[in-house]
Amino acid sequence: MRMYDIIEKKRDGGVLSDAEIDFFVHGYVAGEIPDYQMSALFMAIFFQGMDARETAHLTMAMAQSGDMLDLSSIPGIKVDKHSTGGVGDKATLVCVPLAAAVGVPVAKISGRGLGHTGGTVDKMESVPGVQVAPSRERFLEIARTVGCVVVGQSGNLDPADKKFYALRDVTATVNSMPLIASSVMSKKIAAGADRILLEVTCGNGAFMKSVDEAVELSRQMVEIGENVGRTTVALVTDMNVPLGCCVGNTLEIAEVCDVLRGHGPQDTVDVCSELAANMAYLAEKGTLGECRAAVRRAIDDGSAFGKFCEMIAALGGDVRTLYDTSLLPQAACMREVRAPRDGFVFAMDTERVGTASVVLGAGRATKEDAIDYTAGIRLARKTGDPVAAGEALGTIYASREDLLDAGERILLGAYDIRDERPASHAHFYARISREGIERF
Amino acid sequence: MRMYDIIEKKRDGGVLSDAEIDFFVHGYVAGEIPDYQMSALFMAIFFQGMDARETAHLTMAMAQSGDMLDLSSIPGIKVDKHSTGGVGDKATLVCVPLAAAVGVPVAKISGRGLGHTGGTVDKMESVPGVQVAPSRERFLEIARTVGCVVVGQSGNLDPADKKFYALRDVTATVNSMPLIASSVMSKKIAAGADRILLEVTCGNGAFMKSVDEAVELSRQMVEIGENVGRTTVALVTDMNVPLGCCVGNTLEIAEVCDVLRGHGPQDTVDVCSELAANMAYLAEKGTLGECRAAVRRAIDDGSAFGKFCEMIAALGGDVRTLYDTSLLPQAACMREVRAPRDGFVFAMDTERVGTASVVLGAGRATKEDAIDYTAGIRLARKTGDPVAAGEALGTIYASREDLLDAGERILLGAYDIRDERPASHAHFYARISREGIERF
Repeated sequence: MRMYDIIEKKRDGGVLSDAEIDFFVHGYVAGEIPDYQMSALFMAIFFQGMDARETAHLTMAMAQSGDMLDLSSIPGIKVDKHSTGGVGDKATLVCVPLAAAVGVPVAKISGRGLGHTGGTVDKMESVPGVQVAPSRERFLEIARTVGCVVVGQSGNLDPADKKFYALRDVTATVNSMPLIASSVMSKKIAAGADRILLEVTCGNGAFMKSVDEAVELSRQMVEIGENVGRTTVALVTDMNVPLGCCVGNTLEIAEVCDVLRGHGPQDTVDVCSELAANMAYLAEKGTLGECRAAVRRAIDDGSAFGKFCEMIAALGGDVRTLYDTSLLPQAACMREVRAPRDGFVFAMDTERVGTASVVLGAGRATKEDAIDYTAGIRLARKTGDPVAAGEALGTIYASREDLLDAGERILLGAYDIRDERPASHAHFYARISREGIERF
Repeated sequence: MRMYDIIEKKRDGGVLSDAEIDFFVHGYVAGEIPDYQMSALFMAIFFQGMDARETAHLTMAMAQSGDMLDLSSIPGIKVDKHSTGGVGDKATLVCVPLAAAVGVPVAKISGRGLGHTGGTVDKMESVPGVQVAPSRERFLEIARTVGCVVVGQSGNLDPADKKFYALRDVTATVNSMPLIASSVMSKKIAAGADRILLEVTCGNGAFMKSVDEAVELSRQMVEIGENVGRTTVALVTDMNVPLGCCVGNTLEIAEVCDVLRGHGPQDTVDVCSELAANMAYLAEKGTLGECRAAVRRAIDDGSAFGKFCEMIAALGGDVRTLYDTSLLPQAACMREVRAPRDGFVFAMDTERVGTASVVLGAGRATKEDAIDYTAGIRLARKTGDPVAAGEALGTIYASREDLLDAGERILLGAYDIRDERPASHAHFYARISREGIERF
C-alpha cells in the first residue's frame, strides 16, 4: 500500500477502505508517513469529504492510536460531555456535578483554553490548591467516591488527534466536517465513557457560525457514536452572546458557584440544566421530563453544589473559596466600561469579547502563554438589555492599567448599541440523537 | 504575510496576488516554507485552479528563481521547442537541425528520460563521444557557429520547478493544468529563447489522454507565453502509437539520420517537418506555407542532415556513426516478436511499448538507473498494418536473453490485433497560437 495512491484516490472522490485509513493513521503516528503527504490528504478530504463509514473508521483508528481509558471499575453508565467551545462557557463545571447529583457517574478529561475560547482545566486550576493531574488510580477513585471528576489530559491519549490537529492547524485544513467530527469523537471514545453528550456551540463566538453547519456537524458526530456503539446526543446551543455574565477564570468559578446555588444568570441555569438533564437521560435515569425535574431538585436542595465542592476538595482545592467566592484571588486593577450612548444592546461580537478577555490576561494567544487567573470581564449588559449613556456595560479586571486600556477598547468594539430592541434569541437550536434531528 | 492565509485563500477559491505568489515561490526555494504547507497549497490549486494572471506570474516567479540564460550573443530570433513527451519521440533531434538549416537559431536545453518516455539527452549520449555538458561559453559558441545546439541541463536553472515537481510527484498534485503549464513555461523562459514551439502529445502514450485536455493545456501555455512577452505556438500531436519505428537510444539515433536523409518513416517525417516549419514561422522566415517548402528543401538537399552532423561533431561525437549507422554500438541479443494471429493491428497500448523498452534496458524506472543505449524495439507493424500469424511485429534488443523474455511478453500485450481494420488516425489534432485554436 502506498500513501500516494490513497491521496490520489481521495483527490478523485474515491471512498477509502478500512485498511487504507488504518495505513495512514498508524503510518503517520509512527512517523513513517511525512507531513507533506498527510497535509495533501487533509486538503483532498477538505474538498471531497468522507462518508459515514470512512468517518467512523477514522475515528476508531485515531482513538486506538494510543491509550484507551478503562472506566469499568466505576459502576453505572458513564456519560461524557463535550463542548465545541465558546466565550464564558462554564457549562461543564456546572452540568458535571449537576449530573452526578442525580446519579450519573462522570469521569471526564477536559482541555485548556486557546485563542478566544476558555478551557475548563484552566478555570479549575484558578481555585487555590487544585491539582488537575492526579494519577490514573486517584482519578478513578474520585469518580467512584464522589461520583464525578474532571481532570486535565495526561498520558498518551489519542496521539493521532494531536499530530493531525497540529498539522491541520498550519495547513488551513481544520475546517472539514469529517475531520472535526472524528477529532472530537476519537478523544471521547479513547476517554472511555459509555455515552456521550455533545454541546455544539453556534454563532459569532463559536467555531460553527451557522445553525445548519452546527446541525450537520452534530449529525455526523451522533452517527459516528452510533456506528461505534457509543450512544450520543448533541445539543446545538447559541453562542451569539457569551454564556452567563463572567468571562475569565476565577470570575467564572464564582459564577459556577452562583448557578449551582440557585442564583446564577438565567441563561446559564437554563443551558446547564438542559445539558445535565440530557446526561441523565443518556444514563437511563428516566424520561427527559423526569430528568429535568431531578436536575431542578438537585440545584434547589444544594446537592449539586455539594458535589462540586466534594470534587474540588478531592483534587486538593480550598473549598472555603467556593462557599465565599470573595476569598478567591482578586485582580489588581479593575475598571467599569461605560456605554457611549443610550439604546439597546442590539448585538455582541462574542469572539471579540473573548479576545478582550485574552488581552486582559485571562487566556492564551499561544500555547506557551501564562494565564492571569484573576483577569477577565463581568458583563452588566448583554444582547437585548437597555442601557443609558454612561451606564456600565461591564467591569474589566487585569493586573495592569495598560491592559485595562487595551481590553476596554476591544470590549467597547464588541457592543452594537442601537435605538431598536433586537428580537429575543434562543438558547437551544436543535437536539440531534439517533431518533433524528429536532429543531426548536 | 503568512503561508497559512495564502493556502486558505486559494482553498476558498480566491485569486492570489503577485506578492502572494512571489512569497510562496521564493519562500519555498529558500527553505523558509515547509513542504507540508506547500503540498496543501498544491492540492488547493488542484481543486480551485489559477487564472491567467496568476499562472503567468507564477511562471515568471519560477523562471526567475535561479539563473536566466542570456542568448543575446546569438544573432536572430531564437526559437525553443518543447515536447510533453512520448514513446519513440525523437522529434527534437530531427526538427532542431531542420529548423537550423532554414536559418532558425536554436540553443536548447533538453531533459533525460524517466518512466516510459525517453529523453533527448540520453539519445544524444548514445552517439560515441558526445558530451552533453559543454561550458556555457562553448554552448553559445556552437549555437553561433553551427546554428543549433542541444545540451543537458546544468547550473541552477529554475530551481523552483525542481523543488515543486519533486513534491508534487509524491503528493498526487502533478495533474493540475496551471501547475503543468507553469512548470513547462518557466523552464523555457529561464532557458532564454525569444519564441517557443510546444509539441503537446496526446493519447495512450502521453501524459494528456484526451485531445480536449491537450488543447486546454496548450491554450494555457500559449496564454502564458503571450502574457510574458514570449510568442508561443502549440501543436497537439498524436501519441496513440509510437512515433516512427524505433524506441531506444541508438535505434532512434539511426532513425533520426534516416528521416533527415529523406528516407525515414512517413509519420516521423510529417510530424517533424510540421514542427520545424512552425519554428521557422515563429522566427519570421515567411508564411507557414513558405516555411513548409523551405523545410522540405532542407531535407532534400541534405542541409538538415549536415546541420545534425555538425552539431554532433561540435559536441565531440563520432560523425562516422551517423553516415553509417551500422557503426553505432549494437545490442548483444535480439529477437523477433511474432504475431499470434492474423488480422490488423487495431490499436497499440503506447505506454506499454515504452514500458517494454524500459524493461529491455533502454530507459530508467528510477532516476538512478543506468541505461543500455543499445536496447530497445524496432517496430515492424504499427496501428493499421495488416499482419499474418507468425509474421514479425517487431524486433527487440537487449543485453541478456532474460530481458528479451520480459520485454517480449510486455510488447505482445501492447498489441490489439483484430479482424477489422481501424479508422486511420491523424498526426495533428490542433494548432494553438495567439490567433486562436485551429482544430484539424
